[in-house]
Amino acid sequence: MSTENYNIGLLGHGTVGAAYAELIEQRAGNVADLTGRRPRIEAVLTRSRGDFAAILENCELVVELIGGVDPAREYVLAALAAGRPVVSANKLLLSQHGDELFAAAQRAGVQLRFEAAVAGVVPVIRVLEESLAGTHVDRVHGIVNGTTNFVLSEMERGLSYREALAEAQRKGFAEADPTDDVTGRDAAAKMAILARLAFGAAVRLDQVPYEGIEHLQSDDLEYAREFGLSLKLIGTAERIGDGISVRVHPAFLYPGHPLASVSGPFNAVTVESDAITEVTMSGPGAGGLQTASAVLGDTVGVMLGGAWRPRPATPCELLSDVKSSFYIHMEVADRPGVLASVTQVLGDSDVSIKSVVQRGMGESARLVMVTHPVAESQLRRAIESAADFEFLRHPPRTIRVIEEEFV
Amino acid sequence: MSTENYNIGLLGHGTVGAAYAELIEQRAGNVADLTGRRPRIEAVLTRSRGDFAAILENCELVVELIGGVDPAREYVLAALAAGRPVVSANKLLLSQHGDELFAAAQRAGVQLRFEAAVAGVVPVIRVLEESLAGTHVDRVHGIVNGTTNFVLSEMERGLSYREALAEAQRKGFAEADPTDDVTGRDAAAKMAILARLAFGAAVRLDQVPYEGIEHLQSDDLEYAREFGLSLKLIGTAERIGDGISVRVHPAFLYPGHPLASVSGPFNAVTVESDAITEVTMSGPGAGGLQTASAVLGDTVGVMLGGAWRPRPATPCELLSDVKSSFYIHMEVADRPGVLASVTQVLGDSDVSIKSVVQRGMGESARLVMVTHPVAESQLRRAIESAADFEFLRHPPRTIRVIEEEFV
Repeated sequence: MSTENYNIGLLGHGTVGAAYAELIEQRAGNVADLTGRRPRIEAVLTRSRGDFAAILENCELVVELIGGVDPAREYVLAALAAGRPVVSANKLLLSQHGDELFAAAQRAGVQLRFEAAVAGVVPVIRVLEESLAGTHVDRVHGIVNGTTNFVLSEMERGLSYREALAEAQRKGFAEADPTDDVTGRDAAAKMAILARLAFGAAVRLDQVPYEGIEHLQSDDLEYAREFGLSLKLIGTAERIGDGISVRVHPAFLYPGHPLASVSGPFNAVTVESDAITEVTMSGPGAGGLQTASAVLGDTVGVMLGGAWRPRPATPCELLSDVKSSFYIHMEVADRPGVLASVTQVLGDSDVSIKSVVQRGMGESARLVMVTHPVAESQLRRAIESAADFEFLRHPPRTIRVIEEEFV
Repeated sequence: MSTENYNIGLLGHGTVGAAYAELIEQRAGNVADLTGRRPRIEAVLTRSRGDFAAILENCELVVELIGGVDPAREYVLAALAAGRPVVSANKLLLSQHGDELFAAAQRAGVQLRFEAAVAGVVPVIRVLEESLAGTHVDRVHGIVNGTTNFVLSEMERGLSYREALAEAQRKGFAEADPTDDVTGRDAAAKMAILARLAFGAAVRLDQVPYEGIEHLQSDDLEYAREFGLSLKLIGTAERIGDGISVRVHPAFLYPGHPLASVSGPFNAVTVESDAITEVTMSGPGAGGLQTASAVLGDTVGVMLGGAWRPRPATPCELLSDVKSSFYIHMEVADRPGVLASVTQVLGDSDVSIKSVVQRGMGESARLVMVTHPVAESQLRRAIESAADFEFLRHPPRTIRVIEEEFV
């Protein structure tokens, strides 16, 4: 009995594209057992070769692994308009033009899948869109950038930021230009996508405030170690009242937090909801073969069919000034009255201190405080008021703290 | 515009059934947004009321939350034969009669979903069956029984087995008769189901050897603490050559293992494969609302349609004598020559020792050894040879050790 072929048009043939083409060849028989059709790469389009019109003509599925917005956007829209389902690994495209793409898929009545765009092989998209589709999600926390998680793990072992980044580059976990990773922009794009899926909210990358890891110091990691905390670059998407907040920033996690033990170049996402409490998924971040495996999973998903397709998202109030606990790090002259002055100024700004550690270092003292939850704007005002103290050796540093909720 | 109803027949109305009925009512609107149909419980069948023939007549989906094999099996087979998709949370049924049920679903061309049967709301079934459907899975490790994981976590905090079990019962994490949980039988049923999905292998509960946690001692937990190891009840399903091994037993995990940090009444599953490295999913184990949420996820999956249905599994060689590293705990008379005698006997049986810790306790000494990987049968023979030593205070205890593979 011969099995009918299922023709795939592949756009892009870089690391992931090549790994995907190889995986399709290796696993074609198994996919045929599952779906009844044998997948094959019918045509490839790269900058230098291939014919997009012929791909639309001859292929049942378009797999977009070009990356970047242009020309990927035009190709994906054209494929959807022609009634071809699309699998993409393109986080920039999805996070900047999600509305347009989802509407196009909806109009055409075809699937648009993009598991590999967020957490590589960690199936967070499928779980949010399908397993948890009926669930009222309250919050998503994610470590969605493997490069920064690797750098922070190395800093935890005692390396400086520069040394850790160099190590990440040496091992292939960071690119020559790591800007998008270390500034948090890459994670922000992924959180925009997750927020859309978790809340049906039309969130774009340019609406997600992000803060990176470049300014973190070994001191901060030392504090984390001493108090059993982990310091991670955390993406958050949460409901607060009728609005939502989506943001990326470094955060201290208490030891029992499901993301606290995620080390090295890994990704992990925790989904919280009253009904499910929490579900956490983790695995290696990007890597050619891992990403290609996620694309293969989506390919099988499309081949199996089903009515699933992204819903166009609804507008939603995005909150920018949310409450957190903060860690405040100050290096001050070691003399009487300093702690009193600092706590006075913070108290005047209604910033309430939960714990203080002061430690002498010769001429100076290190003052580390953790606040009770306070709006970010209010904390910033308090820090500004404190910035004028002549006894400060450096401007104060602040890092958010994710507190244990269920104790 | 009125939305068409989607009628569900609910079999069983215990804790999970009641929670599911409530969840369907709460989330009907959201499910309608996703699927275009509004789910409602059209009829309920319990031991004392309801009419199964009417359910088959009037419902598009049958949800089986009775539990146990009879009469659940007859109902599920009848529903499938009548062309009704089935969602079930019944691990006993699936692990004992999987072949028959999967064949019936295949014959009828309808979905049979059972996410809640394995790890509650942790979507391991969907991820194995769909996201990783194209992947060649090498191994699945799972903490698939929340009761025993809670008991072990409490023992880690210093409680005895009896105290920890009483605490689990007090908190509602263990039933009055905890036999199925503490003997490992519940976990074995779940591993039979996972092995079937991961390897397409026809594995039944009665083919899965299991060992529970009843014989574990505080000493063992103390050893774990001292060496930074975790002691968990681990289910394993793995390919070894052309065969597979499926088993449940306590195991020490090295600190970086993805399951090592899973504490309390949680479930977690790690799937390993060359292509994906590893993916881990975790979340709360059973609980009425959590289980009902998993059943809701499956309900949405059925409503969305798609060609997915379980494949009938193929027979497969089940290996019973696999290699592991072992921890061996002996209490011996504290006098010269004892260690030499023990290592001599182990060496004669080709059991190679990796590390030894001997510690005096007055008259006696505690001898803890970890072996290099050795076939279980060989280790048993070696331990039997050692059992005759007159200097032994108790029979030796052994626990498997899961070693770090990638260092």
